[in-house]
Amino acid sequence: ILNLGINDEVVKGIIRKTNNPDFAYDIYKRFIEIFSDVIFGIKREEFWKISVDDKEKTIEKYKELFYERAKKEFPQDPYECLKMAIEGVFNSWNNPRAKEYRKIYQIPEDLGTAVNIQAMVFGNWNERSGTGVLFTRNVKNGENKIYGEFLFQAQGEDLVAGHVTPLPLEVLKDKMPEIYSKLERYVKKLERKLKDVQDVEFTIEDGKLYFLQTRAAKRTPLAAVKIACDMVKEKLLTKEEAIMRISGEDIDYFLHPTFDPNYPLEIITKGKPASPGCAVGEIVLSAEKAIEIAKQNRKVILVRDFTKADDVAGMAKAEGFVTTTGGETSHAAVVARGMGKPCIVGCSEIDIDFENKILKIKDIILKEGDKISINGATGEIIKGEVPLIKSEFPEELKLLLSWAEKIAKMKVRANADTPIDAENAKKMGANGIGLARTEHMFFAKERIKYVQLMILAKDEKERKDILSKLLPFQKNDFKELFRVMNGLPVTIRTLDPPLHEFLPPKEKTEAINELAKELNIDKQVLIRKIEELEEHNPMMGLRGCRLGIIYPEITEMQIRAIFEAACEVKQEGIKVNLEIMVPLVSILEEFLFQKEIVENISKEVFREKGVKLDYKIGTMMETPRACLIAKELAKYADFFSYGTNDLTQFVFGFSRDDSPKFLVPYQQRKIINFEPFKTIDEKGVGSLILDSVLEAKRINKNIKIGICGEHGGDEKSILFARKIGMDYVSCSPYRVPKALLAAAQAEIILKKKKITQITTK
Amino acid sequence: ILNLGINDEVVKGIIRKTNNPDFAYDIYKRFIEIFSDVIFGIKREEFWKISVDDKEKTIEKYKELFYERAKKEFPQDPYECLKMAIEGVFNSWNNPRAKEYRKIYQIPEDLGTAVNIQAMVFGNWNERSGTGVLFTRNVKNGENKIYGEFLFQAQGEDLVAGHVTPLPLEVLKDKMPEIYSKLERYVKKLERKLKDVQDVEFTIEDGKLYFLQTRAAKRTPLAAVKIACDMVKEKLLTKEEAIMRISGEDIDYFLHPTFDPNYPLEIITKGKPASPGCAVGEIVLSAEKAIEIAKQNRKVILVRDFTKADDVAGMAKAEGFVTTTGGETSHAAVVARGMGKPCIVGCSEIDIDFENKILKIKDIILKEGDKISINGATGEIIKGEVPLIKSEFPEELKLLLSWAEKIAKMKVRANADTPIDAENAKKMGANGIGLARTEHMFFAKERIKYVQLMILAKDEKERKDILSKLLPFQKNDFKELFRVMNGLPVTIRTLDPPLHEFLPPKEKTEAINELAKELNIDKQVLIRKIEELEEHNPMMGLRGCRLGIIYPEITEMQIRAIFEAACEVKQEGIKVNLEIMVPLVSILEEFLFQKEIVENISKEVFREKGVKLDYKIGTMMETPRACLIAKELAKYADFFSYGTNDLTQFVFGFSRDDSPKFLVPYQQRKIINFEPFKTIDEKGVGSLILDSVLEAKRINKNIKIGICGEHGGDEKSILFARKIGMDYVSCSPYRVPKALLAAAQAEIILKKKKITQITTK
Repeated sequence: ILNLGINDEVVKGIIRKTNNPDFAYDIYKRFIEIFSDVIFGIKREEFWKISVDDKEKTIEKYKELFYERAKKEFPQDPYECLKMAIEGVFNSWNNPRAKEYRKIYQIPEDLGTAVNIQAMVFGNWNERSGTGVLFTRNVKNGENKIYGEFLFQAQGEDLVAGHVTPLPLEVLKDKMPEIYSKLERYVKKLERKLKDVQDVEFTIEDGKLYFLQTRAAKRTPLAAVKIACDMVKEKLLTKEEAIMRISGEDIDYFLHPTFDPNYPLEIITKGKPASPGCAVGEIVLSAEKAIEIAKQNRKVILVRDFTKADDVAGMAKAEGFVTTTGGETSHAAVVARGMGKPCIVGCSEIDIDFENKILKIKDIILKEGDKISINGATGEIIKGEVPLIKSEFPEELKLLLSWAEKIAKMKVRANADTPIDAENAKKMGANGIGLARTEHMFFAKERIKYVQLMILAKDEKERKDILSKLLPFQKNDFKELFRVMNGLPVTIRTLDPPLHEFLPPKEKTEAINELAKELNIDKQVLIRKIEELEEHNPMMGLRGCRLGIIYPEITEMQIRAIFEAACEVKQEGIKVNLEIMVPLVSILEEFLFQKEIVENISKEVFREKGVKLDYKIGTMMETPRACLIAKELAKYADFFSYGTNDLTQFVFGFSRDDSPKFLVPYQQRKIINFEPFKTIDEKGVGSLILDSVLEAKRINKNIKIGICGEHGGDEKSILFARKIGMDYVSCSPYRVPKALLAAAQAEIILKKKKITQITTK
Repeated sequence: ILNLGINDEVVKGIIRKTNNPDFAYDIYKRFIEIFSDVIFGIKREEFWKISVDDKEKTIEKYKELFYERAKKEFPQDPYECLKMAIEGVFNSWNNPRAKEYRKIYQIPEDLGTAVNIQAMVFGNWNERSGTGVLFTRNVKNGENKIYGEFLFQAQGEDLVAGHVTPLPLEVLKDKMPEIYSKLERYVKKLERKLKDVQDVEFTIEDGKLYFLQTRAAKRTPLAAVKIACDMVKEKLLTKEEAIMRISGEDIDYFLHPTFDPNYPLEIITKGKPASPGCAVGEIVLSAEKAIEIAKQNRKVILVRDFTKADDVAGMAKAEGFVTTTGGETSHAAVVARGMGKPCIVGCSEIDIDFENKILKIKDIILKEGDKISINGATGEIIKGEVPLIKSEFPEELKLLLSWAEKIAKMKVRANADTPIDAENAKKMGANGIGLARTEHMFFAKERIKYVQLMILAKDEKERKDILSKLLPFQKNDFKELFRVMNGLPVTIRTLDPPLHEFLPPKEKTEAINELAKELNIDKQVLIRKIEELEEHNPMMGLRGCRLGIIYPEITEMQIRAIFEAACEVKQEGIKVNLEIMVPLVSILEEFLFQKEIVENISKEVFREKGVKLDYKIGTMMETPRACLIAKELAKYADFFSYGTNDLTQFVFGFSRDDSPKFLVPYQQRKIINFEPFKTIDEKGVGSLILDSVLEAKRINKNIKIGICGEHGGDEKSILFARKIGMDYVSCSPYRVPKALLAAAQAEIILKKKKITQITTK
């Protein structure tokens, strides 16, 4: 609140002193406007409607308007005004806008606010007066050069309001060179003292420089990264401090191309942002169509109600995905983040008419083939083709990440299923593969047929025959993975999903007919198998190691493929750092049963190949019971990898596919104040993990412990993982740089003793 | 092994001493037979094929056969024979039959066995010799009278083998009165000393009585109950000891009618016994058909692949159920045990052809309407109508149960949803209702329509309107429950199942058409709602308190109905002991949100009715997270009721409907050695429960804790519940007597310090 203290008396004094009634009435006028607005809620715009040439008369009219609206005289006692102003600022803590702001920036509700009272200096005093703002460095590109704007004969608010065009700061160099050099000197001093780029407000009153305010400047990701690096070079910051200066969102910016900011966007609807990035393409309504169109080198956006495992091949061909249902951890979202592609989910306004191949969005109708653009960071869907601009990792970011990797005690691995994923993971800085899902190798065209025949096999013998045809495919995949990761750990998980995911759903009569023809089997046999595999709750059915126990021949084939691949590449001179992971264990004997297969087959292969190699065998910790029997499992497992997605589902008793229906209203009704599938629920899931980690380490001090769920790429969850003493996190390749940063930040926070590692209960 | 020590020399000495070559050669012959069989595996039947009149020659032939088969001479050294016999007995510990026996009777593998060596006495010495077995009381009906059989001039094995018809023991009274009275005196002494009915083997050699063996006698449930009671009256046993003498299976016997044991059974297939009892009726293949036929006073057995919530009305009309899929805790099994009806599940040999309304079982074809009989205790399905015999609770059992109730510290409640259930629960000895599932009241004919309309309501207002029509029904149900239980606790759970259970499944086009017509709504609207309610994993979807938070108006209606009912019956002079239970909590705020509704509505009703009453509000503990945040919940909850069914599902990560597919092979492959849905998994689920109970009691020492899952009726689980200090268990009404017995037995075991209550971690 500027100009507080002025009243009918004081204004006369100022006129007497300055001999400038225009100036005096101008500040009185401004004061009435601001004070009425902030304290009494009378909008400034209402005062502006009053147009009187005479300045003194204007004040009268202003006071009349005030009286009319506030039902009292405009206060004349400066102390009363001051008290009201102070109260007004304190009250503003609770206005809806402030609340919203705190929510967005996660500022605690009980932090409170302060009131700063400063003597006025007047930038509008005379022609040797003025007001300006400056940044001590360029906040757009990080250049180490003062940058700012200035207005002669004005108050600070004139600069902000935007009805006068400010001048570049450089004008001061000519007009007031002494002031300029003083300014330059002092703001650099401020920067050195405060160790960060400053956003400074200043005023010049009658040729004298006053600083009003300085604070850390907001900056673009590009600037943030350059400034952090430069300040290390300038010895202003340590590497640790520089790392604390950038955020995961800064890194996101460099990962994805963005829309040309100058292009006008025709937003037709919004969904939930599930995987950042911008993409443009033709609408396709099925995975098959995506493959077909993409073959012609045309870009496509896949729009579905939801996606499933057998859509993955088509998803790989699309630029991005939109689903009408699902949340941030739906299949589409998880695959998208894994592939580093933009994805928008839960676009409930879109109504897909598959029969007529059109989308209805309120009154808008889009056909398959129409172009749309999507922004996975905002959830916006735009009609037509928006031009894209691509960003690259700047050298400074690469440098920062190399420091992060050295500082972080926890390793960052990537979830990668194919050699291409693995290449990418390595490029992103991953220290190994924390989760290679072998089933993802099954969906490729020439393989799925064998998988389907294997499922349909009438007995163990037939199943083994068909499995032997799958073996070479898996083996080659593994060889490639080992070659790419040469010496870095590769954690391979045995078959995990329920078998029905490899067959068409019951209602898809056409797909069933086609498949029966393709596989040359009786349609009824296929239908019967599909029905047999149906489950009430597939999440809690025949999947994970349960499959490898009911059909040990599947595990045997996979383990043979792994070890044959490992031995063969070892003979090529490749270093193999193999970890085998058993999924969905809840009973010790499940793990032991699968471990025995691994031990037997590996010995067999070593004998056959005349090669030996060390390997680790561990278990995925994704059922609550696995955590509860951690001390038993730790006796036999070389590592634990927490599958925090499934663990979260079981601990809460809600599935990530079905839960958005109630989790969204839960957030609105403040039943829950975090997203359990994004950030680890420390109180519930976390306490179960913590207890089991402590138990496991007590029994087996060499056990390696990590996370391979979606949470492995989440900043807060990474801090939690470090706090409880985990060795690594694993996330999708595109999240690796963010995870590296978070892992280094966790270490720094720990060093500063802001948190302490938990080592006992 | 009888007669050991005899050889070519000894036989001559016996002849010299007894002057009875027939006797001497007879025992030599028997010895060769038994010894060859037990030690060398040469079957006795092989010796019996040798027929020579001359006894001495027979021995020669026997020895020849032995030589031929054993490739050595029949041993003549008695000490060598003794050594071999001892080794033979020890080795028998590991023969397959013994292993099987131990498995059935749960005898530990490492218990070991003993060898008892006794001097021979010869019941076949002369006509003043003989052998007999007796029971000190009647083991069929429990009558306190010696009962047994005797054979003159015979060895014990003759009595067992059954090729000679034995005489009733009474013959000794006439023929050897002194021996008889001595026998009577001594066996009663044995009974007094050993405090149990004895099964005694004795031999008389030349007029002298010898006891060979005595052991506790096996007895029928009828005898077990009578004997236990009588022995308390005779001051032979304390009440506690008597209670330890009967088992849950003994009680089962009295709960269900059984097949006439004299009727020959044509068993056509077997499934898993899921709910004991025998039933006879016509085959029906749908719940609707069951209702239709039952209306004509004809008895039906419902045969389905599986059952669902909307089959319950039809199930109520059937005598018993058979399903081709599912396990002991499938819907059919749980409902069956709840209703006390026989049920067989997982009858995989039955192939139901719904179109032609026939069952195929291998080569047998049965039509709808054909009569079958089922035995839920054995899993047997019998063609045709087997006559049934009904048993009643004998007075002695009632007496025993009344003692059990006094001894047990833990209360036994029943899961009961309707006034009829409640009546029955009370009759069975329940101390209250531990779980009244309000949704079960929704399925009745005149109500389901409103429930369906409520689900289809287009907004909150319409939903509230329809809910107000359901209110009177619920209120009347609650009034009846309170009247029946007058003063005993009644725990009412708010709506729990997912809403789609109230609508027909998507594929049932006909049912959908009919319903649309009945409700007078657009078919497409109905279909859209059904699709909207579809879930990937309904177990982990929108159900439990999640419903009451998304649609608070449902909770409001239910709570209003409960309190209006409670206030109104209180005005009638009925004592109301009300407990309200919130299902499927995993977040503290879920519970608080529902609790607030209860508090607000109850206050409103108290004001309206001018009546006040105390009530408790608690939470069902059925998600792992509820257990993990027990200390938070315990601050606000008056009681915890562990829903161990769901908790087991979430802890293991497998659903009870889908798990039989792998749990059965798991048992075969020794991956798991217990049934987690029958007996609480102490290591996993149990440890989670234990920790949460201890935490809760630390925070709220008055908190009441119980179990209301299927495990509440299981003996071992009841012992566990007592061990960790629970206050009550709740099970289906028909399991209450068994639970009462188990609760008393748990107390006795605790008192004997065989186990100790756990009070700290």
